[in-house]
Amino acid sequence: MKRYLSNISLEEGLKKYTNEILSLKKIDTKFIDVDKCLNKITSDAVFAKLSSPFYNCSAMDGVAVKSKLTFMANEQNIITLKEDKDYIEVDTGDPIPKEFDAVIMVEDLLEKKDGQIKIYKPATPWQHIRCLGEDIVETEMIVPSFHKIRPQDIASMISAKADKVKVFKDFKVGIIPTGTELIDRYKTPEIGDIIEFNSKLFEGLILEYGATPVVYPIVEDNYYKIKQSVLLALSECDMVLINAGSSQGREDYTYDIIEELGKVVIHGIAIKPGKPAILGYGQNKPIIGIPGYPVSGWVVMENIVKEVISKLTHKEIEKRNVIRARLTKRIMSSLKYKEFVRVKVGNINNEYVATPIKRGAGTVTSLVHADGVITIPQNIEGIEEGSYVDVQLLNDISKIEKTIVSIGSHDIVMDLINNELTKKTEGKFKLSSTHVGSFQGILSIKKDECHIAPIHLFDVDCETYNKSYVKKYIDEDVSIIKLVNRTQGLIVKKGNPLNIKGIKDLVNIRYINRQKGSGTRVLFDYLLKKENIKKSDIKGYEREELTHMSLAKAIQNDDCDCGLGVYSAAKVFDLDFIPICEEEYDLLIKTEYLELEFIKNLLEVIKDNKFLKNVKSLGGYNTNNTGEIISL
Amino acid sequence: MKRYLSNISLEEGLKKYTNEILSLKKIDTKFIDVDKCLNKITSDAVFAKLSSPFYNCSAMDGVAVKSKLTFMANEQNIITLKEDKDYIEVDTGDPIPKEFDAVIMVEDLLEKKDGQIKIYKPATPWQHIRCLGEDIVETEMIVPSFHKIRPQDIASMISAKADKVKVFKDFKVGIIPTGTELIDRYKTPEIGDIIEFNSKLFEGLILEYGATPVVYPIVEDNYYKIKQSVLLALSECDMVLINAGSSQGREDYTYDIIEELGKVVIHGIAIKPGKPAILGYGQNKPIIGIPGYPVSGWVVMENIVKEVISKLTHKEIEKRNVIRARLTKRIMSSLKYKEFVRVKVGNINNEYVATPIKRGAGTVTSLVHADGVITIPQNIEGIEEGSYVDVQLLNDISKIEKTIVSIGSHDIVMDLINNELTKKTEGKFKLSSTHVGSFQGILSIKKDECHIAPIHLFDVDCETYNKSYVKKYIDEDVSIIKLVNRTQGLIVKKGNPLNIKGIKDLVNIRYINRQKGSGTRVLFDYLLKKENIKKSDIKGYEREELTHMSLAKAIQNDDCDCGLGVYSAAKVFDLDFIPICEEEYDLLIKTEYLELEFIKNLLEVIKDNKFLKNVKSLGGYNTNNTGEIISL
Repeated sequence: MKRYLSNISLEEGLKKYTNEILSLKKIDTKFIDVDKCLNKITSDAVFAKLSSPFYNCSAMDGVAVKSKLTFMANEQNIITLKEDKDYIEVDTGDPIPKEFDAVIMVEDLLEKKDGQIKIYKPATPWQHIRCLGEDIVETEMIVPSFHKIRPQDIASMISAKADKVKVFKDFKVGIIPTGTELIDRYKTPEIGDIIEFNSKLFEGLILEYGATPVVYPIVEDNYYKIKQSVLLALSECDMVLINAGSSQGREDYTYDIIEELGKVVIHGIAIKPGKPAILGYGQNKPIIGIPGYPVSGWVVMENIVKEVISKLTHKEIEKRNVIRARLTKRIMSSLKYKEFVRVKVGNINNEYVATPIKRGAGTVTSLVHADGVITIPQNIEGIEEGSYVDVQLLNDISKIEKTIVSIGSHDIVMDLINNELTKKTEGKFKLSSTHVGSFQGILSIKKDECHIAPIHLFDVDCETYNKSYVKKYIDEDVSIIKLVNRTQGLIVKKGNPLNIKGIKDLVNIRYINRQKGSGTRVLFDYLLKKENIKKSDIKGYEREELTHMSLAKAIQNDDCDCGLGVYSAAKVFDLDFIPICEEEYDLLIKTEYLELEFIKNLLEVIKDNKFLKNVKSLGGYNTNNTGEIISL
Repeated sequence: MKRYLSNISLEEGLKKYTNEILSLKKIDTKFIDVDKCLNKITSDAVFAKLSSPFYNCSAMDGVAVKSKLTFMANEQNIITLKEDKDYIEVDTGDPIPKEFDAVIMVEDLLEKKDGQIKIYKPATPWQHIRCLGEDIVETEMIVPSFHKIRPQDIASMISAKADKVKVFKDFKVGIIPTGTELIDRYKTPEIGDIIEFNSKLFEGLILEYGATPVVYPIVEDNYYKIKQSVLLALSECDMVLINAGSSQGREDYTYDIIEELGKVVIHGIAIKPGKPAILGYGQNKPIIGIPGYPVSGWVVMENIVKEVISKLTHKEIEKRNVIRARLTKRIMSSLKYKEFVRVKVGNINNEYVATPIKRGAGTVTSLVHADGVITIPQNIEGIEEGSYVDVQLLNDISKIEKTIVSIGSHDIVMDLINNELTKKTEGKFKLSSTHVGSFQGILSIKKDECHIAPIHLFDVDCETYNKSYVKKYIDEDVSIIKLVNRTQGLIVKKGNPLNIKGIKDLVNIRYINRQKGSGTRVLFDYLLKKENIKKSDIKGYEREELTHMSLAKAIQNDDCDCGLGVYSAAKVFDLDFIPICEEEYDLLIKTEYLELEFIKNLLEVIKDNKFLKNVKSLGGYNTNNTGEIISL
C-alpha cells in the first residue's frame, strides 16, 4: 500500500519531532569512578572534597623559616640561622610545619653549611609558599551540571578527592538492518544478494556523535520478525533506527510497526536524498525509519539523527567545517526538496573550487570520494556554474590543500600515481581524480578547476595527439607532461567467441561505448569513419560507460560483446584484446603549476623506476617519454 | 647536580627533535578485519575485490523488459506484453536476468493485470537499471595508503568485499609517574602526600591525539626503579613519557636514564611553563621527560608531544579553534620564553574579550576554568590591555557564546546560581565567575569586559552600599539586580578559643585579610577606622586571600586566627562567627543586557523558590529583595 508522504521542510520537521520527543523518557544517570568519566556529561555539579593543596607547602627548593627572625637582615646585617631551631630544608612541594611561615629560595642563601645558613634579605610572611587551597578549596564547585568532562576536569577532580561523579549514562542507539535480500559480510554473495553495510556506516557516525551504537542482526522482510527485533532493541537501547531493505514497499512495515508500538510523528521530509524517512517513537523512546539507500541513510543521519542525539544527550556535537568555494558545474535541483549534493573540493590558484560528483543515492563510494556536501535550499531550482557556495567538509581542510586535483580522462595509471604519491609522501600529498573525459579536462584547465587534466585527444585533421587540440582551445601558458603511450583496441570475451578481428566486424554484435567527450569515443568515431561505417549501424553505440574498467567488466559479464578500450583494462578482467593503435595519454597543466610542491612530487613519482615497473606490468603501456615536459 | 639547560626556541627545538626521531623505528603494520578499522590509518591502498553492484539490478519498482519489443509503443499504439515471456516483475535492487535489458517503472504502466502489461512509450536500452560496477568496479582503488578510515570508507570496503585492511598499528604511549611523595587516588592522603593525577590528564590528551595511552604504576625517586619502569614501557609501547615528581632534582634521573638508554637531544626549551622538558630517545623510540607541575605538563603535551605523535602516526591531529579577542588586562611576559597564558573568554556586546587567569604552573583547576590560551612570542615583553590577540580555545565556541561572564566580588551564591542555571537550561547556559573584588567589577562593567559584576561596596561617606559608588564611577546606563543581604563578621576557630568579640580584639592575634579592591577589605578598613585602630597594628594585615572560602579554610587550618568574611563561609568549615554587619551583595549590569536571553534565565533562576531555599540554608543570607531591578 503506497502511503501519502508528507513534504514537510527539514527545519519544520525537526522542530516538530524534537518537541515531541523531548517529553519522552529522560536518559538515566549513574555514579561512576572519576577515572572512567572522560567525555561523559555531568548530571550534577561536582564539588571538591579536599582542598588542593591540602596543606601549606613549599613553592621552591630552599629553606622554611620563621619570617620574624629575618626582618632585620640586609647586606650590612647578615643573619645566621640554625637548622631545626630556626629553619629546615624543603624541596618544592614539601609541607611547611606550623612553626615556619616563609620560604627562602636556595639561590637567595649567602651560605648553607654545617647546620646553618646566612641570609642577607628579609623574608616576607608566606613568601614562596603554596597555601592550602591555592588551587581549589574543599566544597567549591569544580564543574557544573551538564558539563562535558575533559582530561583536565578529571585531573582536578582526582586532586580534590571527588572520586565518584554523577553522569548521564551512555546513550545507546540500536540499529536494525532489514531486508530479505541482505546478507552479512561473511557469506559468499550470489546474484540477488546485497551485502549489508549501512549498519557499519551508521555505527561509525553514531560514535562520532558521542553515543553508543548497538547493531542487531539482519531481519528479513517479515512484519512480526522486524517488530520482535524492534522490541528487543527498545528494551536495551535509548533510541532505535530501522534501516529498510532497498524495496519501496518496505516503509509499510516500519510505519505500521512504529504506529503499533507508539506513534509516527512524521513520514516524509522534503529532502533529497532521504525523503521517505519516518520519525516516530515507541515505548517512550525515539524510533526512526531510515531509507535503504546508503546516501539517503547518510543524509538522514547527518541532518536528523545527529540533531536528535545531540538534544537527548545534552552534548554539543561538533559541526563539520564549512568553506566557501566556486562551483565549477551548474547544479540543477528540484523546487520540492532541499538537496544535498556531494562535491570534490580543490584549492586551485588560491581559490577553493567545488565540482559535483555523481548523485545516485545508492553509491556509497561517492561518500568516500566526496570532499564535501553542498545544501541547495528547497526554493532554489539550481545553482549556476561560477557561483560561490558553502561546502560542508567531509575531509580535513588541510588534506584538501594538499591534494592534486585531476579532471579528465580515466586510466588505471592515475590510481597508481595516487598510491605511489601517498606512499612517497607518507600521506602528505594525494591525487584526486574525476573522470569526465579528455574534452572536459581541457575545459577544466582553462577554467582553473583543476591542476592537471589527463587527455588523449586524437586530432583527425592533423592525425596527432593532444598538442593541436590544446592549442585550439587554450590561450593560457600550458605544458604537457608526457605520461604513457597506451594501446587501444577492441576488448572482447575470453577466447573471442565471435571471432572479432577489427572495426568492420562490429556491425552485428552488441557494442558498448564510452561517454561523449571522452578521448576513446573520439577515437572510435574516427575509426568508424575510416571504415565508412555509420554510427546507427552499431548496436549499443548509445550505451555509455564512464571508465575503461566498467566497460571491460560489462563485457566480462556478457552484457555486451565488445568495446573500444585500453589493454590494461582487458588484462585485469582476463579478456581478449585486438590491438588497433597506440595513443598518447598525457597530463595537461598550466605551466606555473609545475612549481607547486605536490606537482614536483608527482613528477618524481612518475620518473621513479618502481612506478615505471608497475606501469609496464599492467600491460599495453610504453613509458619511453614518461616525465618529459613539453611547453606549448 | 644542577645541569645547564638550553634555551632553544620551541620551533627550532621541535624541528631538531622530529628530524632525529623520524629516522627511528617505524610504527608496525598489520591486517585487521574491515569492521574494526575505524579511525585507523591505511598502510597500503585498499582495492575492491568485488564490483558493486556485482550484477545488473533494477533501480526502480516495475517490470524488466526486452527493450526491442517496446520500440514501437506510443499513445496511438499501445503494446501488450506477456509475463515471463516478455517481462518479469522486479523490485528496486532485484537482479535483471540476461534476456531483459530495460526496466519500466510501475508508474509508467498503463495496466498490469492477469499476467500481462500494457505500455504506451518505448523503453531505451538499460534505462532504470543500475549496471554492474556503477558504484565501484572490482580491482579499483577504494582508498589510498596513509588514509584515515571513516565510516563511509568501511561501508564501501564491505560492499566491495575488501574484508581485510592493512593498517598502522595503534601507537602506544607509556606514561610513568615518578615521585616518592606521590600516592594513587585510592590511598587516604596525609600531610606530605601528593595525589597523583597528571597521568590521567596525559591519558585523556593522548586519546584526543588518536594514540593509545598506557599508564604505569607510580615509581619512587630511585634511579634503578625508574629505569626498570622505562625499560618495561619501552618493551610494550612506541613512545614513553616520564613525568617528574615536583622536586627540581628530578630531571637528573630522567636525563641520566635517557642518556644511558639512548640519547638526550634537547634539555630545556624556551617555553613557560614547561622549560625543563627533556626530549630524547632510547631503544629506537622517543622518550620525553615531562616537568612535574600539571600546567607545565599540559603545555609540553599540547606543543611537543602532540606534534611528535602526529608525525609518527601519520595522523593530522585537529588543531584547536582560534578566535580573535580583546585583552582586558595587560599581560607581562619574559623575553626569555614563549609564554602560554590561560584566559577566560566571553562574548560581550558582540565582541570576544579575553581575561587572563592565575598563572601558577601547579594549578590544574586553572585548566578547568580557562576557556583558552594565549601564546606570547619569545621576543615580546608583554601585551597591553585593549590589544587584540589570538586565543586558542579549550572549550567549544558555541559554549562561550552562551556563557554569562561575571567579574567582581566572590560569594558561594554565584556557584549556586551557576548550578541552578545549568540545570534549568540543561547545559545551554552557564555562568563564568572571576573573583577580583568589587572595585575591579565596576571597572570591568565600564570597560565592557563582563555582563554582570557582583559588588558590595560600602561608601563610607554616605554609609550606603553600591549605588553611590556606581554613580561615582560609571556614566553608562546601568542597573542593579538585588541579590542578597549577607552577614559579614569575624570568622574564628570553632569554640572561639581567643575569645574574640569584636574589631577591638584583633590587635594581638594573627589576622588574615582579603585582597585590595575587594568589598570585604574596604569594609574592614572602615571598621578599623571607626575603632581608631591603625592597619600597622593588625598582624597579618598584609596577608591576602582571594575568596571567603580560602580565608575560612586558612583559619580552620590554624594558619591564622581570624578574618573578616561571610557567615556562609564560616558555616561551611564549621567555624565560629561574630556578626558585625549586614551588607548588600548585588549584581551590577548594563541596562541593555537585561534583555539578553541568558540574563533573563538568570533572573528566573534567582527568583525561583528552590534557589531561594538553597541560599537560605547556606546561612547568613536575607533574600527579601532578590531579583528586584533598580535603575540608576
